[in-house]
Formats: sequence, C-alpha cells, structure tokens
Amino acid sequence: MEKFTSIKDIKNLDEIIQQACDIKINPHADAALGKNKTLGLIFMNPSFRTRLSTQKAAMNLGMNVIVLNISQEGWKLEMQDGAVMNGETVEHVKDAAAILSVYCDVVGVRCFPELKSKEMDYSEQVLNQFLKHCKCPVISLESATLHPLQSLADVLTIKENWNRPHKPKVVLTWAPHIKALPQAVPNSFSEWMIQSDVDFVIAHPEGYELSSEFTEGATITTDQDQALLNADFVYVKNWSSYTNYGEMSLVKEDWLLTPEKMKATNNAKIMHCLPVRRNIELLDELLDGPNSLVYQQAENRIYAAQIVLKQLLK
Amino acid sequence: MEKFTSIKDIKNLDEIIQQACDIKINPHADAALGKNKTLGLIFMNPSFRTRLSTQKAAMNLGMNVIVLNISQEGWKLEMQDGAVMNGETVEHVKDAAAILSVYCDVVGVRCFPELKSKEMDYSEQVLNQFLKHCKCPVISLESATLHPLQSLADVLTIKENWNRPHKPKVVLTWAPHIKALPQAVPNSFSEWMIQSDVDFVIAHPEGYELSSEFTEGATITTDQDQALLNADFVYVKNWSSYTNYGEMSLVKEDWLLTPEKMKATNNAKIMHCLPVRRNIELLDELLDGPNSLVYQQAENRIYAAQIVLKQLLK
Amino acid sequence: MEKFTSIKDIKNLDEIIQQACDIKINPHADAALGKNKTLGLIFMNPSFRTRLSTQKAAMNLGMNVIVLNISQEGWKLEMQDGAVMNGETVEHVKDAAAILSVYCDVVGVRCFPELKSKEMDYSEQVLNQFLKHCKCPVISLESATLHPLQSLADVLTIKENWNRPHKPKVVLTWAPHIKALPQAVPNSFSEWMIQSDVDFVIAHPEGYELSSEFTEGATITTDQDQALLNADFVYVKNWSSYTNYGEMSLVKEDWLLTPEKMKATNNAKIMHCLPVRRNIELLDELLDGPNSLVYQQAENRIYAAQIVLKQLLK
Repeated sequence: MEKFTSIKDIKNLDEIIQQACDIKINPHADAALGKNKTLGLIFMNPSFRTRLSTQKAAMNLGMNVIVLNISQEGWKLEMQDGAVMNGETVEHVKDAAAILSVYCDVVGVRCFPELKSKEMDYSEQVLNQFLKHCKCPVISLESATLHPLQSLADVLTIKENWNRPHKPKVVLTWAPHIKALPQAVPNSFSEWMIQSDVDFVIAHPEGYELSSEFTEGATITTDQDQALLNADFVYVKNWSSYTNYGEMSLVKEDWLLTPEKMKATNNAKIMHCLPVRRNIELLDELLDGPNSLVYQQAENRIYAAQIVLKQLLK
Repeated sequence: MEKFTSIKDIKNLDEIIQQACDIKINPHADAALGKNKTLGLIFMNPSFRTRLSTQKAAMNLGMNVIVLNISQEGWKLEMQDGAVMNGETVEHVKDAAAILSVYCDVVGVRCFPELKSKEMDYSEQVLNQFLKHCKCPVISLESATLHPLQSLADVLTIKENWNRPHKPKVVLTWAPHIKALPQAVPNSFSEWMIQSDVDFVIAHPEGYELSSEFTEGATITTDQDQALLNADFVYVKNWSSYTNYGEMSLVKEDWLLTPEKMKATNNAKIMHCLPVRRNIELLDELLDGPNSLVYQQAENRIYAAQIVLKQLLK
Repeated sequence: MEKFTSIKDIKNLDEIIQQACDIKINPHADAALGKNKTLGLIFMNPSFRTRLSTQKAAMNLGMNVIVLNISQEGWKLEMQDGAVMNGETVEHVKDAAAILSVYCDVVGVRCFPELKSKEMDYSEQVLNQFLKHCKCPVISLESATLHPLQSLADVLTIKENWNRPHKPKVVLTWAPHIKALPQAVPNSFSEWMIQSDVDFVIAHPEGYELSSEFTEGATITTDQDQALLNADFVYVKNWSSYTNYGEMSLVKEDWLLTPEKMKATNNAKIMHCLPVRRNIELLDELLDGPNSLVYQQAENRIYAAQIVLKQLLK
C-alpha cells in the first residue's frame, strides 16, 4: 500500500479485513514496527473518533505522533497552484505538505468539503495537493468525498456480525438532519459495500441521489420500506443533496427509522458512523438497543487505522 | 480505587499520601506499569497545571497520553438524556464518553460550573455522565464542585511542611477577586482537611458560606483576624457566593491578606492553588516570600496525579 | 550550553554545525539521552516548522514532549512585574514559567513582537521573563527580535552547499510583502552570518535598516543589483521598518527577485525561512527551481533543534 484515500488503494479486501481481525486480538504485536517512525496528523476540521483512534493505532505500533490543528495552531493554507498570495493565506499547501512529509513518515489529512461547489469538492483539491507534494505515504482522515477509514471499520464490523452461509442484505438508508452534511460517509460506504460479498441497497428520498461514481452496482430505491425488507444490516446516515449540491431539499415522507419499520427487517443490526444527532437522525431506542453496532464500529476504527498504518510502514 | 472524583474514592488517606511521597523520591520506579496503556484527557475548560502535571504523571508511569480540547478540536456535547438534538450540540456525551473509554484505559475530565444554576452545577451532570458512560476509570481534573487532585497535592504539601507532634492549625481564608469563581477548590480543600489530622478553620465574609455538604466538621467564622491567630498554614482563595449562587456580594471589610495580618499567625506557611491574581487576591510580597508554598503545591500536582493513576492502573 | 536564545549561547559555532551534521547522518544515536526527560513547548503565536521540527528533534532524543498553546488551552499571562492583576491577565508569567520548568527539563518559548513599540519588543520582555523565572534551560522558538533555531539551520544549509576553498558571498535581500513582519529572522541571520566564514551583504530599500546591534560587520547597501553581483547564496526575506518601527514605508524600486536579476549572481542558491507568500515575496519559478534550498533549510530545523536539545540535556 502506498497511500490510503479510497478502497482503490486496497489490493485484497478480504486479506486486509482478516489482518485487522488479527490486530484486534493482539494490538501490540507490532510495537517494534513503528519505532523511530512519526505519524503527522493535520486537521483542517473538527474530529473526535478519527483523531483519537488514529493516534491510538499509531501508539499501538510504537510510532510517535504529532498532531497539528493547522488553522488554530498554524495558519491558513493556499490551495491554488500559481496563486499570487496577497490574501489571507499565509503558506502554500505545496510547501506545508512537502515539509510535513520531511518531518513525518506517514501523514494523515482531514479536510471537509465546503458544500458550495460540487466541482471544487469532488476535485478533492486539498487531499490531492497533499498527495502530490508529500514525499511520504498519505492517509485520508476523511476527505471532501470519501471516508475510507470509516468504511474499513464498517466492513470489519459487518464481518464480525455475520456468520451465515448466505450473503447479508445491507441497506444504507438516508435519515433526517438539521444541517447540510457531506456525502463522504455514504459515498465511501457504498464503494466498499459494492466490493464486499453482500447484497447492497441504498434508500433515499428523491433529490438525494449520490454520485454514480461511487454507487454503480448498488440497488437504489426511494422506497425505504421496500429496502428494509429482510435487511440484515441497516446503516443510517444523513447526507445533503448531490444533485442540488449541498442543499437539503424538502422531504415529504418520514425517513426517520422507527422500531415499527425495523420489524420488516431480519432483526437487522443498526449502524451509524457517529456523531449522531440523537432523536433527529436516529432514535435513542434504536441507538441504545441490543441491535446497535455503533460502538463496535467506533472501536474498530482503531484496527482499521492500525492495519493501514502497518501496511504503509512496511 | 475505581475512580477519582472526591476524597470518598480514597480508602486510606495516610497510605495514599505516603505513597505519593515515595513517588516523589523515585518518580520513574513504575515506568513499566503504564506500558501500552493510554490516558485520555478531555478538556472542556482552560487548564495549565492540571493539564501539564497529569500528562507528566502519566509519562512517568510509561503511559501514552491523548489530549482532547473538545470544543476546539471536536464539537459541543449534549449533556441531557433523551434530548432531541436539533440545536448546537453535535454529539451526546453518552456516545463520546463510551467511545473515549474504548480508546483509553483511564479518562480524565475537566469541566467547570457555569455558575448560573446551583442545582445544575451541584448535580455534577457533566462529570456524572462521564462516570456513567465510560467503561474505564474516570479522574476528575476539576469538576463543577470539587478539585480532588489539587486537594491531594495540598495535603501532601502540608504533610511535607509539618513535623511537630501537635496538629497544625490550617486556615482557609476567602480573598478578594474581580471575577466570580467556582467553589470547587475551597469545597474540596475543606473535604480533605476535615479528614486530615489538623485543626481546620474556614474564614469568609458574610454571604460567602460554602455548602455544608463539604464543610461539616470545620470551624467556620466571619472573623478573619480570629481565624489567623496561631495559624500554621493559611490557604488563600477566592470563591463566589454559594447562597446567592455565583454572585459576588459586596464585602465591606478588607479581606486581602497582609504581612501585618500574618503577624498573628504562627509564622504560617501560605498556600494557593494558582492561578492567582497577584496584588488582588494575594500580594507579591507574600507570594514571593519565604513562607509561600505555592510552587511546592504546584509541583506536588505531579505526584498527586501519579499516585491516582498508579492506583487506577493496578 | 545553558540556554539558547541567540548565537551568544554558542561557544564554538563550527563545532555545533559539525555535530548537527553528525546528527543528520544518525538522528537516533542519542535516543537514550532524553529518557525520562520532558520538553515543554509553550506557544503564544502560530508556528508550523518550529512546532513540528522541535517535537521531532525531542522524539529523536527519546524525550517526552508537552505542547501548550497558552492562550487557547490556558489563559493570558501577565508580563509586568508588580502588576495589580485586575485586568484580562489570569496568571503571572513568573508563576507560569516557574511551574512549567518544574514539570519540564527544557522549556521552549515562542513569542512574537507586537510591532507597536520598539522599546517594548527589543526589551524581549516575554522571553526574558521566562529566562528569569524558569528553573531549567530555555530555548527560544523565535522571540520578538531573534530566531536562532532558524539561523542555526540556515548556517548548516549553507555549509552543506559550499565546498570551494574561498568564502561564499551571502546576500540577505529584502523582499516585498503585504503585511508588516518582525525583524527577527533577518536580525538573527545577520548575527549568525557575521560570525560565519562568509562575505555577508545586506540589501534593503531606504527606511528598512535593521538594528546595528545585529548587523555590525556586515556590508549594507540599498543597491540590490550591486549586492547580487557574484552572490553564491541569496536569502530572501521581508521585514517591516525598524526605524519607523513596524511600518511598511513605501518602496519605489522593484525589490522582487527575478530570474533576470539572478543572472548577475554566481548561479546562487536561494534561501527563505518559510512561510513564504508565493509570487509576492518570492516567485514560484525561483522557489521551485533547482537552486532553491528552502526545503533543505526546513529539514535542517530538525537537526538544529536536536543539537541544541542535546547540548542542553548534557
């Protein structure tokens, strides 16, 4: 592995998942691998699980970690090549990335989309600038369009919760929210599900179609009840519109998942990447119920980060 | 020890203080104890001594440390159970605490009171939510009503400065300030003094009574001169009113400690938890004089944190 | 070495540079030296290279590192001795420094000038307060008037790029900017160049004279073309006026370095401390060209910090 920014960087998904399982059993087995190696984490946006689990994973591997909240501890980066820097940006990303990668052996970058311009966000300008100018491997800690560490943890969680001979039915269902959110988690989850041995269905209201770049191969429906039928896993997540980019078009139907709706499923497990707006996006009753996998997903973020770091250090 | 949020979590105070003394002599003796263990420190408020001394203590024990300034690096937590999260809070404390404790072996939480509602602050909602939802031991890094790591360091400091056969007289005296401050330090100091082998007197102006929950057993007076008479230790501290909650009722007498007032004492040592507003709360002359113990108290914060971490790791 | 705040703290410059070269070849050779030692870094201002490279250097030496962004994670420090602290400052620097140095074995301080009062900035009040009150060695991470870690890295970089028998001609040339910047980097570079075996020329527009305290012994000119003639190294840097303190007096001539102007040099190497405002202070073409040493300078910040830490730990 030379970088980790999407599932495309994984050669053999089954093998990676198996290795993540091994790490979970014995997380300190490779404590010598990271000796004298430094992980640099650069945050352009808030982060809780990603921030902590990636640090934990690096420490399990014996790495040193340097965390940089660039806009609070440093300054605003210029992203445009050739820019005449007479504005608010103090340092060009090409310089910051090059130097960060001289100080570190692996660099992790967290950068959200602005949700103003689809072209801008889907060009992954920020992540790509780091990829271009870092002289060491780069890990996406969630980019404008994808969140591969989350998806790796999600695939691991599904594997841990499925031991029947047939493929599970996995449903990604849109949920209400009060704020326009990125499409990174659903894009990424879709990409990883399509390459997994599952029946994958995406359910969302009209106007909330995801980019076909990530969903090709999935069954897509606007009928939530139909989607939930015999589902084994229900991944709940809000996202803003891709078509009317970044907008929250009115949704007439009630997309909030309920225990009643869950009856149509095959006693499905419930998943969410967190943070979750309780009782807006997902009900307490379901989040705290016996079928919820949300804390297991969060724990698996450690092992997802650790297998990626391990591969990159080798 | 299963948690550390007040003196109630200490089984044998003398034993703990003795062990803290031992740690001070040989701080790296237990460097193997924390191997592969992680301390997670979550700050909801500013912190200097607590932040640094607790990190130092953990490092002395060979632990890894992850620091999270939740509102700057993460987002606002919802504290209310059952809340419909359609406001500013992004993640429920139950989720944040549960996951933090999956990533860490010990969790430290810093949370100040808002000084708006006595009921709210004295319910210790924030700390209690962490205690309820963390799956690992929790340390208070100062809560709404108590600051036990400070008190432990204070008791250690008094012990180090007293070798006579009789009990020392310890006076906690209210001091002026320009800002409404929590009652956490005086509440806590009182609680610890009452269980120590000292004569303990609290002196404060009328209207500045502390909650009897923490002061029962102490001699309480509004006569500062009387209190200082033959004192061996004078702990200086401002706090806002508990009765007129969070207010700074007018004080007619001059409560600022002076060298003149100190003459009534038994050449008493002067204590303060810091930070101190110099020449408002306590005079330079006293803070920088030979009887000041304030830097020794600050140093002892390391060993207070270290004995607590050591007990929790065992 | 007992502290590191300017070249005056270096006994033998050649020896230090040679030792920095040795560290660069084998950065982990002294990993036992820092065992159980703690570096405390206190930032009053943004920092990228200094923040990361100093952490990296400490880790290479096996030290623990504690980083404190004092105004974001702590509170505002009072700098004035004897102050009646009834304003915005919460803790006196004398207390913060004393305690920081109890928790740490070496303290690094970053403090910028305000560029309002020459007397205030050039008194180095903040750095001097730390020097006075810290009980352990202090490193300047850039102070109001000097940036010695940068200069040490710069001298190392020049040495690495010069193997001819005669002295190189090194030119420090003022460059345009849109914002008033400190004189710390040019002051410091001048101080170090004057003590190095080079021909040192400073070129700047009228009104941009540096303090003679740091430039005595340098050739100073307002003729950029003349300065560049046969130069071997061209150090490009903006600074605000020292005479009209902190101002950006109008500059009629075009001081932006161009490939055309570079033709007069001896195929000179180009240096800058970064961050650089691209295409304002220095052109992309030159920064990204084969003669640019800017990333090498940035890398050498690690070894500059490491030799200083190593000397202080001994």
